Amino acid sequence: MRREIETIAVVEQNIHATTEPGYVVGVDVGGTNLRLALADMSGTILTRWSSSTVALRGPEAVIRLVCSGAKSMLQEVAAPPDALRSTAIGVPGVADVDNGIIIATSYLMGWRDVPLRTLVEKELNVPVAVDNDVNMAAIGELWAGSAKDAKDFVFLAIGTGIGAGIVLNGNLHRGNSWSAGEIGYMLVPGAAEIPTKSDEPGALERMIGGEGIKSQWQKLSSTEDAAPSRELNATEIFDRAIDGDPHAQTLLRQSSTKLAQAIYNVSLILNCPLFVLGGTVGMHPALCDAAQKALDQWIAPVSPRLVRSALGTDAQLFGAVRAALEAGRTCPVSPAVWASSN
Amino acid sequence: MRREIETIAVVEQNIHATTEPGYVVGVDVGGTNLRLALADMSGTILTRWSSSTVALRGPEAVIRLVCSGAKSMLQEVAAPPDALRSTAIGVPGVADVDNGIIIATSYLMGWRDVPLRTLVEKELNVPVAVDNDVNMAAIGELWAGSAKDAKDFVFLAIGTGIGAGIVLNGNLHRGNSWSAGEIGYMLVPGAAEIPTKSDEPGALERMIGGEGIKSQWQKLSSTEDAAPSRELNATEIFDRAIDGDPHAQTLLRQSSTKLAQAIYNVSLILNCPLFVLGGTVGMHPALCDAAQKALDQWIAPVSPRLVRSALGTDAQLFGAVRAALEAGRTCPVSPAVWASSN
Repeated sequence: MRREIETIAVVEQNIHATTEPGYVVGVDVGGTNLRLALADMSGTILTRWSSSTVALRGPEAVIRLVCSGAKSMLQEVAAPPDALRSTAIGVPGVADVDNGIIIATSYLMGWRDVPLRTLVEKELNVPVAVDNDVNMAAIGELWAGSAKDAKDFVFLAIGTGIGAGIVLNGNLHRGNSWSAGEIGYMLVPGAAEIPTKSDEPGALERMIGGEGIKSQWQKLSSTEDAAPSRELNATEIFDRAIDGDPHAQTLLRQSSTKLAQAIYNVSLILNCPLFVLGGTVGMHPALCDAAQKALDQWIAPVSPRLVRSALGTDAQLFGAVRAALEAGRTCPVSPAVWASSN
Repeated sequence: MRREIETIAVVEQNIHATTEPGYVVGVDVGGTNLRLALADMSGTILTRWSSSTVALRGPEAVIRLVCSGAKSMLQEVAAPPDALRSTAIGVPGVADVDNGIIIATSYLMGWRDVPLRTLVEKELNVPVAVDNDVNMAAIGELWAGSAKDAKDFVFLAIGTGIGAGIVLNGNLHRGNSWSAGEIGYMLVPGAAEIPTKSDEPGALERMIGGEGIKSQWQKLSSTEDAAPSRELNATEIFDRAIDGDPHAQTLLRQSSTKLAQAIYNVSLILNCPLFVLGGTVGMHPALCDAAQKALDQWIAPVSPRLVRSALGTDAQLFGAVRAALEAGRTCPVSPAVWASSN
């Protein structure tokens, strides 16, 4: 478990100063780590807490960790337990935001219809909001990241999985059954045209997700390289491309072309001018630059701009803090005007 | 020029009865025909008027025809010229709805930055609204067609060109630069990965647009068939598929698979439960059935339902009448509640 205290200037600029006492907690439930941030009512993050979730996948264990982390952080800032005002939790899965239910998570966690909001509210006795983690990241970028002045944008998370958080007119578009933005299954040229099951990586994930890139790398380098080089991950492979490795350059070219095609397809449908790339793979500068170049070739009828996430792996956590402020109805700006409130 | 009088019951059910005197005109500007409908303030269409636009492509000529048609229809119902309350015009192109400007139309018409609203308002002296014709069709389907109970749906027009009208939370999503739904350029598996220019058919249009299907048919049948059969259009080819022609069946299978893939991609992004297929090609029942079957194979994570347009080629005209009622602010229901007002 790791603790640190920080004050993030960008946040202070974007929430109106308030003297209201109390704290909120933002939570990011990841496949390998649970991360929490404690913020005051102006949105300034005061401390963080994290814990491995590798051996703890069930909702009960995760909820216990959330409570433990929240209490620990409150103690750290010398605040009583009842100083907590609200909490928001981002989860890698489909979340029914209205009812606070996690409908499904990826096969790694395997949650199904977990009433997470009710369960955590019982423990912490404060309002709790839940959402998909990529949506939380989009909220974070809109609040304090690369999409601060955006009314319409798409946050694109590319790690092992691929997902999009879609903001239209300053509001998240979550879809009729809470699964908008599931673009990891998108069919672009070259994609396998075989149906995908829900517990398998999607067609686009196989092409440009972290594991997909790694597996293509292993095929390309299988005859030539020693084992250590075959075990590179996607970002290390892209680093090699910058250093001139021809196989890595091939993969970077292929990945950026497919990413550009996926963004082009989203762009045709939504006519969004801005895409924010996040996630461990999506954050790589070489991928963003090469995808922008590929995209610029398709000049008509849409030409979106790609930028890298300003918050990086913190986007989800920032979004959760922002959603927690909103959940407690303590935030001076409403969701509908987030985009123009900065 | 053709005139007819009709009363459409479905419309009468969906607009609150009003005793307000006056009339509205809905206009559909097509590549080959200009069509007008005159309705009373309850939305009941009383008469229609149409004229060829084959030799008349410029905005001035089209505007003259609109005025001429409107006056003619008012005379027909024995109403004075000042009984006209408002007008709405659907145009095949990108329309800035806020400012009433047609930014661009297809290469066939070649309009650029035409202030259509102002020009027609000057002539008719009533409020005028303009919009993309596929958006107008979506409004029509939402008002009185296959999407009457829908909050979220996509109207998909497949003729020579392909376009989508996207309704989210009961409102049209038109995009940041008014070009949302331009899915004729979408890149699905098998699409040419070469950049498309704005005056050329898009990648998806080449695959499943009317001309694209015709051209594939001609290649398939070039060695075997006589000239008359080579000149079939897409709907005639699909009719032949039903009759057992193996080449036509191949084309129907390919077209429906590609259509299903395009719908799947839109569905992943928007999580819309309903797609209404319109346009001369899209209305073919065999295409809709085969696309639904193909789509059902991709059971996760989204499974939208496909239906054929209930209004057919009248969808745009119905939408224009509905938009005209709204433009005159005479309609008892606001756009935001269209979806739930039926």
